Amino acid sequence: MSLGAEDRIHQWLRQKLRRQGFHSVGDDGAILPAGGPWAVTQDQQIEGVHFPARTDPALIARRLLAVNLSDLAAMGAEPAFAFLALSCPPDFDIRRLLSSFLVACSRYDVELAGGDLSQNDRVTSSVTLLGTRFSGGRWLKRSHGEPGDSLWIAGDLGLSAIGRRLVEIGACHSGRRVQLPAAPHLTVREETLARKAVRRHLIPQPQLAASRWLALRRRAAAIDVSDGLSLDLHRLCRESVVGAQIDESCLSTEANFQQLCLKLQLQPLATILAGGEDYALLFSLPPRVRPPAMLGCRKIGRLDAAPDVWLISKGKSLPLPARGWDHFDSATVAS
Amino acid sequence: MSLGAEDRIHQWLRQKLRRQGFHSVGDDGAILPAGGPWAVTQDQQIEGVHFPARTDPALIARRLLAVNLSDLAAMGAEPAFAFLALSCPPDFDIRRLLSSFLVACSRYDVELAGGDLSQNDRVTSSVTLLGTRFSGGRWLKRSHGEPGDSLWIAGDLGLSAIGRRLVEIGACHSGRRVQLPAAPHLTVREETLARKAVRRHLIPQPQLAASRWLALRRRAAAIDVSDGLSLDLHRLCRESVVGAQIDESCLSTEANFQQLCLKLQLQPLATILAGGEDYALLFSLPPRVRPPAMLGCRKIGRLDAAPDVWLISKGKSLPLPARGWDHFDSATVAS
Repeated sequence: MSLGAEDRIHQWLRQKLRRQGFHSVGDDGAILPAGGPWAVTQDQQIEGVHFPARTDPALIARRLLAVNLSDLAAMGAEPAFAFLALSCPPDFDIRRLLSSFLVACSRYDVELAGGDLSQNDRVTSSVTLLGTRFSGGRWLKRSHGEPGDSLWIAGDLGLSAIGRRLVEIGACHSGRRVQLPAAPHLTVREETLARKAVRRHLIPQPQLAASRWLALRRRAAAIDVSDGLSLDLHRLCRESVVGAQIDESCLSTEANFQQLCLKLQLQPLATILAGGEDYALLFSLPPRVRPPAMLGCRKIGRLDAAPDVWLISKGKSLPLPARGWDHFDSATVAS
Repeated sequence: MSLGAEDRIHQWLRQKLRRQGFHSVGDDGAILPAGGPWAVTQDQQIEGVHFPARTDPALIARRLLAVNLSDLAAMGAEPAFAFLALSCPPDFDIRRLLSSFLVACSRYDVELAGGDLSQNDRVTSSVTLLGTRFSGGRWLKRSHGEPGDSLWIAGDLGLSAIGRRLVEIGACHSGRRVQLPAAPHLTVREETLARKAVRRHLIPQPQLAASRWLALRRRAAAIDVSDGLSLDLHRLCRESVVGAQIDESCLSTEANFQQLCLKLQLQPLATILAGGEDYALLFSLPPRVRPPAMLGCRKIGRLDAAPDVWLISKGKSLPLPARGWDHFDSATVAS
């Protein structure tokens, strides 16, 4: 990017930020007030890896913040400051991305406190997000699980993977509307679910309400499900030095999920277990503790003392491998 | 990157970090202790933009930390925590980059506290660096300049641009040796300067000692010279609402600088004023305050009440435009 252009974007952004009471304007870095302790997360969104080429910059912005908020949610942290590193081709609409990022930030009470712009072939973005502990709360750790704990999920599993497939075959999201591809033919109910899936894929919903509730418990383990339930469950088990079993029948509650998967040539169970990019919150709680119904969490299994991870499917226990979508041996979990 | 590969790299990195007493291991983010206030900087290094393709990953790592340290130096901050977002092609040697980054971090007492790995066509890296105020110190701001202040520079101007040109025509840095291209023919003294220039370009030297001294002054303005002295001086002037004049004869003290520039078909003065990537520290001080000689700073001019920026060249005042290398009108500053 030419220096003149970069300076002009900085000037334009600073005017916007000044109105919001920006902490540090016009220096080589931002000054954040004393505070903390801080939870810090960093997550990238890259064209062709995390979103398709020619995605609306407004969607990239919302997704970029959402995936980082999802990481903070898994820490039990209250989001506070964001730093955005963006590199992109010269014809990319940077201002549209930044405007949308600021709108998304204000929705979550996050302050964009700094960043860096440069040029690149592909749109490559990275956010560093700082959050504080909720007042009276504890950090959530992957390692806080104990044998006998119940396993819960907040958010949808597999829906994002369905959305990704739909986007691959032509679905798009413009303005607030989702346009579905002409084929395959879907029933009205499948169409409703398909639209929800595309939205969920493009704009994940960070589980901040569940996170806040969990942070105020005496003990809870949590992990952001971004690489698929199977792999992320193994990670939680490894840190807590436990095993787990999860019940296939509890994993998805969406009507029409199976039918929609099959029409899109997706294996339903593999989509749920290893679809990835769910940005759901997987957590464990002592057995008698239940999240309030309004949080919409589902109990999906429990932690065990033995280190193995099992899927209970139609009364049979099947070993659940620690694999993401690409490496999934569908035979292992064929329904 | 396949998930398995990413997990293996995380595991390998965590073993290294555990030995260093890493703050947060195995969660969706890092926990930093309460403290601050914090200065936070974020800077990217991208293949083909900031360094050539096939640059040794160890050099990329050192450069990546150095450019961020240089930003913190301009804030008067003591570096503390780094977060590294890296995306790269599958055949890139991530472990070599990470190992070198950790070595560089430990040299500056920086803790690598988190990050994110993904795939990309080009090696794209971004660091977010947090620093604290030096004990008893103040933040350095671009806006702290006043008319009558002297203008100083710590670090070299133009040398990095010479190094960049040498790398473009075939110079390389392997192990600790710099190999120069066969043409143009250089004298032994020019060769020595050329090697220094290649090193300075590939591994900038953050001006932390000068920064620490400045942070303990009653008043000092400072800016990181990364886009060329001319443009960055204009930025400092804009924030301090002052003008400036700088003296051409004080800008470079390197013997053989002119000759080496000319052999490389670089215009010497434009190289100094707008070569870019100097990562020097430009600062202003009240007129009677002088940095200690051991810091090797040079006085290059002064700040004025009138808002214009001038170059004093052979007794004549020439207007100095706010332009980086690419946009520089060499006629304006022809010597």
